[in-house]
Amino acid sequence: MPGIYAPELLCAGHARYVDRVDPIRAVRWAPAGDAVRIIDQRKLPAEYVERDLRTIEEVREAIATLAVRGAPAIGVAAAIGLVTSVLPFAREGGELFRARLSAHAGILVASRPTAVNLAWAMARMLGRARALSAVSPPDLLDALRSEATAILEEDRAMCAAIGRHGLPFVPDGARVLTHCNAGALATAGIGTALAPVYAAHDAGRAVKVFVNETRPLLQGSRLTAWELGRAGIAITVLTDAMSASLMRAREIDVVLVGADRVASNGDTANKIGTYALAVSARHHGVPFYVCAPWSSIDHATPNGEAIVIEQRSPAEVRSFAGVPTAPPDVDVRNPAFDITPAELITGVVTDKGVYCAPYSFTYEMRSRD
Amino acid sequence: MPGIYAPELLCAGHARYVDRVDPIRAVRWAPAGDAVRIIDQRKLPAEYVERDLRTIEEVREAIATLAVRGAPAIGVAAAIGLVTSVLPFAREGGELFRARLSAHAGILVASRPTAVNLAWAMARMLGRARALSAVSPPDLLDALRSEATAILEEDRAMCAAIGRHGLPFVPDGARVLTHCNAGALATAGIGTALAPVYAAHDAGRAVKVFVNETRPLLQGSRLTAWELGRAGIAITVLTDAMSASLMRAREIDVVLVGADRVASNGDTANKIGTYALAVSARHHGVPFYVCAPWSSIDHATPNGEAIVIEQRSPAEVRSFAGVPTAPPDVDVRNPAFDITPAELITGVVTDKGVYCAPYSFTYEMRSRD
Repeated sequence: MPGIYAPELLCAGHARYVDRVDPIRAVRWAPAGDAVRIIDQRKLPAEYVERDLRTIEEVREAIATLAVRGAPAIGVAAAIGLVTSVLPFAREGGELFRARLSAHAGILVASRPTAVNLAWAMARMLGRARALSAVSPPDLLDALRSEATAILEEDRAMCAAIGRHGLPFVPDGARVLTHCNAGALATAGIGTALAPVYAAHDAGRAVKVFVNETRPLLQGSRLTAWELGRAGIAITVLTDAMSASLMRAREIDVVLVGADRVASNGDTANKIGTYALAVSARHHGVPFYVCAPWSSIDHATPNGEAIVIEQRSPAEVRSFAGVPTAPPDVDVRNPAFDITPAELITGVVTDKGVYCAPYSFTYEMRSRD
Repeated sequence: MPGIYAPELLCAGHARYVDRVDPIRAVRWAPAGDAVRIIDQRKLPAEYVERDLRTIEEVREAIATLAVRGAPAIGVAAAIGLVTSVLPFAREGGELFRARLSAHAGILVASRPTAVNLAWAMARMLGRARALSAVSPPDLLDALRSEATAILEEDRAMCAAIGRHGLPFVPDGARVLTHCNAGALATAGIGTALAPVYAAHDAGRAVKVFVNETRPLLQGSRLTAWELGRAGIAITVLTDAMSASLMRAREIDVVLVGADRVASNGDTANKIGTYALAVSARHHGVPFYVCAPWSSIDHATPNGEAIVIEQRSPAEVRSFAGVPTAPPDVDVRNPAFDITPAELITGVVTDKGVYCAPYSFTYEMRSRD
């Protein structure tokens, strides 16, 4: 990768070459405007494949099978996909068209139960449709297309804002631990947990990222390692149970993770394994930050106990890429997420600012929204 | 599996059918006495393959590649293998033969640096040879054959004793968490960490075992799940980062793990990931027991910092069974073990009894050996 000398990005007196690569576009409109274009994340890192999704079944299947994943990216993909899925029906009568729109939104909401952004994006799209109750299907489609584009653009701006707000937690020389993928591949922009890392790298700071591989689906070793490596950021891949001993050896300065849902009291649902990291971080006095868009904060959910945890297929634990990793039919657990209680979270880095305990997002939401 | 009504095994007033299966013989003499016969653990659970190892290179390779693994089993395999590897040289002069014996022992000691049993078994075999300094090679071979057999038989008795001493920690209905494989496949007998589980099962107690899959080599999901399932014991396989949230949900009553080496102060080297479990167990108030033969206690090692941690190939983390799990050539860590400090260990269950903090194994060793 060619380095570009970027004197405007100097930091701490060190001249650095900052690598510039094309940004990752995990989810966007296909150029013809008739499909949502995604990077198929099941194929990475072996293959880079973009797919165009049009029908409701194509969009639902891509979300359910994690071809597109990450709470923000799912919200954007669902918003665009909702529009493309009803495009062929623009000549239907208004009532039937609106019923179809609601039904498609319901199908998408059900495809991943934990990610609040998905429900949030669908509610926003349906709210827009309701606000335009007198409008014909073709005009409604135009409005929904704009709304989906707004969700996408806001998502990109959200990522950049999280990067700015999280930048102080990634000083020059920082050694960051992250879990799963809350990066560019999980959003329409530069990610959530990885946004401060990209921001620090862009500011010319040396950053080293330890990446948990994140069984069962290995989003860390497959996706986070791929996207950070592509950006020229130093990475080391760990199996999920190694990081506690790295913390003990004082090799980790800060933990940055994403969130699929943050309850009103700060309890956070994120990829299974996040809670173990939070426990370990507390034991070793390592700061632990959740980085999430404001839209991941669910003020209707009082605490972690009220969050429904998606249970995924046993096959994901019993095998990897078709290779059995356990006796067939052995009993397994496969929750997609766990809950990290607010008391273990040093701060929640959002696009609206950094919040620290005691969290009271219901109050914050009333005062800011 | 047929159940046999075993009234002598009743416990707590409940009549149970106890499944009887042939015991696992992970390591033993081949019937002709010219090889060490092992179960090739790289093939499990897909294939059950026994292999006979004769030459020093065959034995070294089997230990280094984890075809035979588990500190006690390695010690037994090395003792028998040392004998079989020098069998073809019995007609050599005594001095040359003894030099060869020492060289072979050195090769085996170097094949896995962390397991103390390996060095212990080799020292014992060489000590026996030194004590018979006037004896001809054929007679020395007979003596070494007996010594190796004694090591094997003592290992089986050791496992049974750990089972007896650990039985109180596995009451009826107990839900046990274990990591890696410290079972029958890791010893010549019924295992170390799993010995109390087998003892409880034999006593008619209901036992449920949560098994961490144990990346990178999946000894938990491949081996522990296989051997416990074979014995009719209820198991649930977890990925390595799940158990903290199970502890939070009060689904785990006790953690039982093995050890590759216990320092004099109780600090314990065991499979990477053990330390994270110990931190989590402490956070949740779950008892955490190390189960290990007395021979795993290294009184020459004052504490964990003095234990050399074997670093294994990056390829183990970057792939599984030939399937890439990360970008090629990505930097990884792959320590085989981590150190759990004594203060996180509720007790060390040995064949000589249960020891609790403050550990002072040097003193115990002087008073018992």
